[in-house]
Amino acid sequence: MCGQVRGQRGCPVMSEPAATVSSEVDVTEFSMPIGEAIFTQRSIRRMRPDPIPVEHLRLVVAAAVKAPSGGNSQIGRILVVTDRDKIAAFGELYHRSWWAKRKADRGWNGPADVPPGDTSHAPAMRLADEMKDVPCVAFILSEPPHMPESVLLSAQNLMLAARALGIGSVPTRLHPDDYGEFRSLFGVPDRIGFHFAIPLGYPRGRFGPTSRKPTAETTHWNEWGGPVPWA
Amino acid sequence: MCGQVRGQRGCPVMSEPAATVSSEVDVTEFSMPIGEAIFTQRSIRRMRPDPIPVEHLRLVVAAAVKAPSGGNSQIGRILVVTDRDKIAAFGELYHRSWWAKRKADRGWNGPADVPPGDTSHAPAMRLADEMKDVPCVAFILSEPPHMPESVLLSAQNLMLAARALGIGSVPTRLHPDDYGEFRSLFGVPDRIGFHFAIPLGYPRGRFGPTSRKPTAETTHWNEWGGPVPWA
Repeated sequence: MCGQVRGQRGCPVMSEPAATVSSEVDVTEFSMPIGEAIFTQRSIRRMRPDPIPVEHLRLVVAAAVKAPSGGNSQIGRILVVTDRDKIAAFGELYHRSWWAKRKADRGWNGPADVPPGDTSHAPAMRLADEMKDVPCVAFILSEPPHMPESVLLSAQNLMLAARALGIGSVPTRLHPDDYGEFRSLFGVPDRIGFHFAIPLGYPRGRFGPTSRKPTAETTHWNEWGGPVPWA
Repeated sequence: MCGQVRGQRGCPVMSEPAATVSSEVDVTEFSMPIGEAIFTQRSIRRMRPDPIPVEHLRLVVAAAVKAPSGGNSQIGRILVVTDRDKIAAFGELYHRSWWAKRKADRGWNGPADVPPGDTSHAPAMRLADEMKDVPCVAFILSEPPHMPESVLLSAQNLMLAARALGIGSVPTRLHPDDYGEFRSLFGVPDRIGFHFAIPLGYPRGRFGPTSRKPTAETTHWNEWGGPVPWA
């Protein structure tokens, strides 16, 4: 019987009008099929400077806070930054932090030290240069006790919602040594934890398919090493 | 100009047929608008025993692995369990682990110790009883170095994809003291990290809106304490 319970086996998954599902925002703009959003969420590191309408940032934030958290503790906090001076200051910190990590991991001091054949670092290196120019950065933060399991699911909601609105994103991190400077920059109290800095902006270039290992390589069935039924 | 780049400001976000966006699976079944999936992803703890078609589990796994990871490291691993005996054994472990945590945190030995007025634990307590009967459990695991930032985004993709197929889910954890027994149960090597146990099943009851704090309470604008423009 295809009655009250939606998505029963053998029953079509029926949609209520999306606008009815949130009291705070009108989510009818989120009409992109979820399959398209998930399967074309390429990390976008090249962004146009065009500002993102506040109403879309609100939608993206509203989507983020809908993610589950342990015991509905809702310890996640979001800091949205669109102020040009503050983004410029953060971009300087991010650039310095990115290169400090390359120095520590590989002894690189700057672009001249990147081996000529290395293409894997180019997009991230360019983002380190361009972070200062992105139209928005959303920081994923938390109140104690900071369990990532209660915070990070919301970051994926935020990025998928952005994708559905044509807004590119990429989850980036800061070296923990730089958390103090980050806190100073934005007046963030010491008790607040840092998880992600997610630049948001309209892409230069395209969304599109991503490159991932076949599921048969990363998925196990009934026991470790058990082949998936579709292998 | 509304040309190649989708989702430009002022341009409609146009959809290519979803089937073109993944080489491994046909994602046309993921037609639910992303807004509906995100805004009705209520944690489902009461599940019917009906099995989930393998083809749907494959879609859910394919969606999970599309999430971004640091440097596309793809350290996430998924163990899907549908075997009834194995789920029964895991359910026994989960029940024991759940109560051990309540014993440690609150001194509770069993349902008789839960104060009569306490309604917040009832759903989780019932899930601890019923885990043995769910049709499927997806374990979110990882290869070293286990950074949650490179693993947990895929868990949210998995749960949203399940939601879009009418399949309920809830992210649960095990006490770290029980990881060893979990590994023995499924032959999981010591190097593999544990993040979530996500039961999957068709809901008894309904999906629907969730209760979250207003975004104005958990979102800061340009600096800590800065009010959101919609406050």
